[in-house]
Formats: sequence, C-alpha cells, structure tokens
Amino acid sequence: MAWPSGADGTKMWCCERLESAVAPPSDETINKVLWRIPNVLCLVGSRAGEEWNGMTTSWVTQVSMEPVLVAIAIDRSALTHRLISQGGAFSINLWDRADTRPFVKFSKPATKEGMTLNGRPIREGSTGVPIFEEAIAFIECTVWDQRDVGTHTVFYGELVDCGFQGEGEQAEVARMEDTRMKYGGVKRH
Amino acid sequence: MAWPSGADGTKMWCCERLESAVAPPSDETINKVLWRIPNVLCLVGSRAGEEWNGMTTSWVTQVSMEPVLVAIAIDRSALTHRLISQGGAFSINLWDRADTRPFVKFSKPATKEGMTLNGRPIREGSTGVPIFEEAIAFIECTVWDQRDVGTHTVFYGELVDCGFQGEGEQAEVARMEDTRMKYGGVKRH
Repeated sequence: MAWPSGADGTKMWCCERLESAVAPPSDETINKVLWRIPNVLCLVGSRAGEEWNGMTTSWVTQVSMEPVLVAIAIDRSALTHRLISQGGAFSINLWDRADTRPFVKFSKPATKEGMTLNGRPIREGSTGVPIFEEAIAFIECTVWDQRDVGTHTVFYGELVDCGFQGEGEQAEVARMEDTRMKYGGVKRH
Repeated sequence: MAWPSGADGTKMWCCERLESAVAPPSDETINKVLWRIPNVLCLVGSRAGEEWNGMTTSWVTQVSMEPVLVAIAIDRSALTHRLISQGGAFSINLWDRADTRPFVKFSKPATKEGMTLNGRPIREGSTGVPIFEEAIAFIECTVWDQRDVGTHTVFYGELVDCGFQGEGEQAEVARMEDTRMKYGGVKRH
C-alpha cells in the first residue's frame, strides 16, 4: 500500500509523520477489518432507454437530510455504472433477509424478459427505472451529483419516491452477513 | 418535499415526467423506509491541535478498493466536522454490540481528561487522532477529499492504519438496530 496523497495527488500534511511511524497494515488485515463494517445487501435498479439492469450492491448509506440524499458506490466497470450515468436515476430495492438467493445471480448483468429481470418481476418507477415487485421496500432517486473515487463512482441520489411493498414493513432487511459473500477491502490483482 | 434539481440547481431530465407522475412520499414514509437501511453505530475520533473529540456516527461505508477509501457523512454543524476539516484525518472505532452505552453520551461534544474521552481510554493514532482502546477494531484515515452535500459533508478517508484490538476479532460489531436510536430520514424543523 502506498502512503496517501489526496485526490489531487498532493502529499497530505501528515505524511511525514506517517512515514516515520507505523508500517501499513497487510492486505489481509485491511480486508478482515473492512469486511466488518455492517452493510446492506440490496438490488440497485438502473435503466438507459431499452437497457435495464439490476445489480447486487452493498455500499449504500444516507448522506443528507435536506435534500434527502442516499449515496451508493458503484464499480466503474459495471453495466449499472453506465446505465445510471446515462439514465440519471436509480432504485434501491431492500430485500427480505429470509431470501438471499437473488444476490449471487445479480452480481452479473441481468437478463430481461418481459417485465422481469432474471425472472424477478419489475415495474417502472416514476423516473422509468425498474423497481422489483418482491422488494420489501424501495427508494427511487434521481442523480443529484456523482463523484469518481478510485475504483468506484459515488452516485448521490435525491429521493423522489419510496415505500414499503407487500408485508415489507414487518420483514427484516437483508445484509451482507446473511450470505457467504464478501465485498470490499483491497482490490485483488 | 420539492422536486429534485441536482447539485448545480438545474432541473433534471426526468422532472417533467416526475411532475406528472406520483405525489412525493410523506416525511413519515421517508423516515420509516430510510431507517431500515442497515448501518453501523461507531465512534469517530477527530482532532485539531489540542481539541480532541469522539462522536457517534452511523453513515459509514467503504467506497473504493484502490485507493482504499471509506466515506463518512458528518453533520456540518458538528464539532467533529470542524476538527476533521482542520486536522485532515479521522478514526472509525467499531464497537462491541454487547456494549452500546457510549453512543448516547457521544452524541454531544466529548469531555477530555488525560488520555480519555468521556472516561473512555484513548491513544494517539499515527496521524494524531484519538483511537479508542476499547474499540474492537479501528480504521484510521487521512482525508482524501471532502464534499458538502446538503446538511452533511462526506469525508472520503484513505486508510492508513487499521486493526483489531483485544478480543475484537471474535466480537460482533454494534449497529444502529442494537439501540433505540434513529438517525436519518428527513430533517426535523
């Protein structure tokens, strides 16, 4: 791991101090610690024209109360990254933790047949993005701003619609820890 | 809730469509849905010169694997906001979910006596920020970049040190759901 230098490439104030202090942690330690940050496991819906997708996503958090902004970090090589950039909107679909089967399948670009993605029924949200009918709750956002950060882009989504679906208000939301999946830590080379 | 207009104030592509579509959800619905996004509950350590603080924080997620970046969203009126802006670094202290007592107390500026904050022992990390000795794991970051977003600022932290402490590798990390606290949703006026 190289010492930090800031987004603009300049050395940070504390680097001299750092270089004389500790050795950087091992990749294994970084992975083990970062995997312990509790994260959701959800499906992000995106669309640009006739291209629709749903993707398993875990880096999600609210970041502002006024306007109401929810940030998601999406791999810059992912289809979803292009669809959100072109379409200007996305949906966050919270899932029942009792049914984590979709998450592995939605780690690759999804297959659309009629109004389904990978066989899961969808409807069109008010911005046109897919919303999963089986989600226990959905959050639909327009892109308020976006920021490239290393391997990913943070999309700041402004909430335009949300709600529970079916018996969703009584269900528990799926998290990363409900599966054997791991996401995050250092990039594998 | 006003219809979204983007960070630069321009109307989004989809607004005409939106305005003819659904009514915005109620504040109550927004709160109920957003409170369901699973989040950590941790203490963020910050410091500028002789001012030290620890603050209960829940809007935390990794956002990049190379460089390794962890984002935290901090209220712009919080002492921690000023200390991170001035000091250029912060620590994320993951806590044992079996001991959620510190979180209410650390919702206000902390009292420092010797090397303690609110009576909890701290040490100086490699960047100078406080790290809580009782944390089950810590992540120490320098500020790679920061972005004002509505009520909060997102600090992009580049990992410079991290590790488990004590028996931390066997412990479970505290989450918002382990307490009666709620954070997020719409701003209360």
